Amino acid sequence: MRAITLLTDFGTADYFVGAMKGAILSVNSQAVIVDITHEIPAQDVAAGAFTLLAAHDSFPKGTIHVAVVDPGVGSARRGVVVTAGNHLFVGPDNGIFTFVYDRNPSFEAFHITEENYFRHPVSTTFHGRDVFAPVAAALSTGVVPASFGAAILDPIRLTISTEPEIIHIDRFGNVVTNITRDQFKNSTQLIVNGTLISAFRNFYGENVGELDEPFAIWGSAGFLEIAVNGRSAAKLLDVKRGDQVMLT
Amino acid sequence: MRAITLLTDFGTADYFVGAMKGAILSVNSQAVIVDITHEIPAQDVAAGAFTLLAAHDSFPKGTIHVAVVDPGVGSARRGVVVTAGNHLFVGPDNGIFTFVYDRNPSFEAFHITEENYFRHPVSTTFHGRDVFAPVAAALSTGVVPASFGAAILDPIRLTISTEPEIIHIDRFGNVVTNITRDQFKNSTQLIVNGTLISAFRNFYGENVGELDEPFAIWGSAGFLEIAVNGRSAAKLLDVKRGDQVMLT
Amino acid sequence: MRAITLLTDFGTADYFVGAMKGAILSVNSQAVIVDITHEIPAQDVAAGAFTLLAAHDSFPKGTIHVAVVDPGVGSARRGVVVTAGNHLFVGPDNGIFTFVYDRNPSFEAFHITEENYFRHPVSTTFHGRDVFAPVAAALSTGVVPASFGAAILDPIRLTISTEPEIIHIDRFGNVVTNITRDQFKNSTQLIVNGTLISAFRNFYGENVGELDEPFAIWGSAGFLEIAVNGRSAAKLLDVKRGDQVMLT
Repeated sequence: MRAITLLTDFGTADYFVGAMKGAILSVNSQAVIVDITHEIPAQDVAAGAFTLLAAHDSFPKGTIHVAVVDPGVGSARRGVVVTAGNHLFVGPDNGIFTFVYDRNPSFEAFHITEENYFRHPVSTTFHGRDVFAPVAAALSTGVVPASFGAAILDPIRLTISTEPEIIHIDRFGNVVTNITRDQFKNSTQLIVNGTLISAFRNFYGENVGELDEPFAIWGSAGFLEIAVNGRSAAKLLDVKRGDQVMLT
Repeated sequence: MRAITLLTDFGTADYFVGAMKGAILSVNSQAVIVDITHEIPAQDVAAGAFTLLAAHDSFPKGTIHVAVVDPGVGSARRGVVVTAGNHLFVGPDNGIFTFVYDRNPSFEAFHITEENYFRHPVSTTFHGRDVFAPVAAALSTGVVPASFGAAILDPIRLTISTEPEIIHIDRFGNVVTNITRDQFKNSTQLIVNGTLISAFRNFYGENVGELDEPFAIWGSAGFLEIAVNGRSAAKLLDVKRGDQVMLT
Repeated sequence: MRAITLLTDFGTADYFVGAMKGAILSVNSQAVIVDITHEIPAQDVAAGAFTLLAAHDSFPKGTIHVAVVDPGVGSARRGVVVTAGNHLFVGPDNGIFTFVYDRNPSFEAFHITEENYFRHPVSTTFHGRDVFAPVAAALSTGVVPASFGAAILDPIRLTISTEPEIIHIDRFGNVVTNITRDQFKNSTQLIVNGTLISAFRNFYGENVGELDEPFAIWGSAGFLEIAVNGRSAAKLLDVKRGDQVMLT
C-alpha cells in the first residue's frame, strides 16, 4: 500500500482538508492518508516547495505526495503527476516541485488531462478536492502516471536564489538557510543581518558559548541553520525569510 | 470499512481529540479515522453545522461523521445517531445536523440511550470520548443505528435565516453566503456592506476587473462567495459571519 | 495491530511531524498513526507530561505512545522505551513520562542504544525522526522493549508539586488543578487567586448559580477543574499554569 501525503495552504479550520480526504477515500477506501502540513502561508508556493523537500524523503519509496498551494486554480495552469526519486508527486504545475526536479534530474512529469479520473462536477476553485485528490487516489490503486496525460518537458520551476539566503524559519525560531555542506566547504563563518556567527555546535543544547549567543548548526533538512539555545534566533537576529546571509 | 470523520470545537492543543481517537480504537482497532476539523469556534453550533455540510458529501457513502460542538454536554440534551443520504452522523441533538436534515428529508434519527455502547465511567463533561466516539466505533463494526435507542421525530434544528447572509469566512478571507444557484437565479448583482458587487468570475485568478475589485464566484460548497484576487475579501469589505447581504 | 500515537511540541506548520510519520511508515507501512497533539508549548516537558497522562489511557492496551518534547536532543540525555500499564512509551528520558511512572509503579524502562533500529544518518537535532519514530515502528512490528537497550532503574522524573496548583488551562479556559478525588476528600471549597469557589457542578451547563460564577467540577482527566459557564475561567480569575490554589 502506497501512503498519500498531503501538503497544502488550506489551514485546518475549514472543510477543505476533510473534503480532499473524502475525495481520496471515495476512490480508494483503503488509502493511508498522512498530513504533512496544511499551514503553508496562503499562496506561498516557495514555502510549500521547501517544506515538501524537507519532509518527503522520510517517507518510503512509492509514497504519493499531494502538494496544493495553488493561487492559479481554475486558470490555464496545468496539473502534473511527477515521478522522481521513486516518489510520486501530484499538484499544480506552478513551481511547487522545483526542489524535487533539482534533486532528481531524471524526473518525469505528466500533464493531468484525463478527466475520467476527476471528481465531477469539477469546480473551478477547488482542484485539491476535484482533481489532485482523486488522481492521487487512482495512483494509490496502481494506475500509472502516464495514464493521466501527456509528458511535460518544461514544468514550471521557481527561480531559486543562488546566493545564500534564509529560506525558512521554523516553529522554534531556528533560521534555515539554503546553504548546503557543499556550498559551505571553504567558509568558516557567516554574517546574518550584521551579526558575525563563528560558533558551530553539534546539537541545540551544546554548551560552547555564552548565553544567547547565536550559533550555526547543520539542520535535519540538510541545510545550515542559525539557532540560539532555548529561544528564537530569528527574533534575536531580527531576520525573515528571503533575507540574504554572507559566507566569509 | 466505513471511515469515521471527526468535527469538533476542541482545538488540537489539548488531549481531547486524542482521547476520542483512543476511545474509537478501543472499540474497533481497525477503524479509519479522519479529521475534518477541530477548530470550529468554541461552542459555535452553527459554524459546525456549516462545515459539516460542506465537507461530508465528499466522503464515500456509509461514512460515519462524528460532530461534537456541545455546550450542553452533561445536561438533558439528547445524543443522536442519524442516517441521511447514505451517510451516518453521531453527535449531540442541538442543531448541528440541521443542514443534513434539510438536504435529506427522509433522514432518520435515533436517541442514543443504550449505555452498553458507552465508555465507562461516563463523564458529565466529555461525551465526545465517552458516548459519541464509542457509538461511532460500534457503527463502524456494523451495529445498526436503531440499536442505540428509540427513533426521534423532532430533532433540534437551528433557525436558519431565509434572508441572504454571510455564513462563513474561510482562511483566505473569501466570504461565503447562504445563497444557492436556485435563490440567485433572477438576480444579477449583490450589495455587501454598502459595496455593489457586479463582477462575476469563474475562478479566483480570472483577470476581468481592476486590482482589488471584489467579485462573486460560485464556491466549492455550492454557495455564492465574494472574493478578491490575492487578498481577503472579508477584510476589504469589513464584514463578518451573520452580516446580511442584498440581492438586486 | 498496535496504534502509534504522537505527542510533540513541533507544531503543525513545519515538516517535522510529517517526517516522523514517514520514518514510521518506512519501517512499518501498515502502522496506524494517531496524533494526540503537536502543540505542547515549545520545550515545555511538564505540559507534555500532563497531556500524555490525560490522553493515553483512552487508547487500547498495547498502544505505543511517542512523546517528543526534547530540549536536550543531541546531548547525553538518554532515550527510553517504557512499558507501563500495558501501554508502551517512547521518547527522551527527561521527565516526560513522570506521571506514567507515578501511576504505574511496576513500570519498566529501557535505554535506547541499539542503533540498528535508528534511521541513518542519525541527526543531532531531530531524534523524533531518526530515533523515536523508527523505534516505535519497530515496537509496532513486535520487537520487544528489551531489544533496544539495557534496563534503566533511575529514569528522570519531574519534581511534581505536592501542593495544590494549576497544571493546565484548556482551550475553553477551564482551569485544571492537580487535585484528585483522594486529595479533596476532606475539603469543601477552594480559593483561586483570592476568589472563594464553593459551588460545585456536575456538568458545565448546570444552572446552579449566577451568571459568570466560577464553579468546581470533576474534569474528564480525573482532576478538579474550575470553570465558568460559556466563558474562560482562566481569564475571569486571571490565573495561569503553575499558580497555587488553596483547599479549605
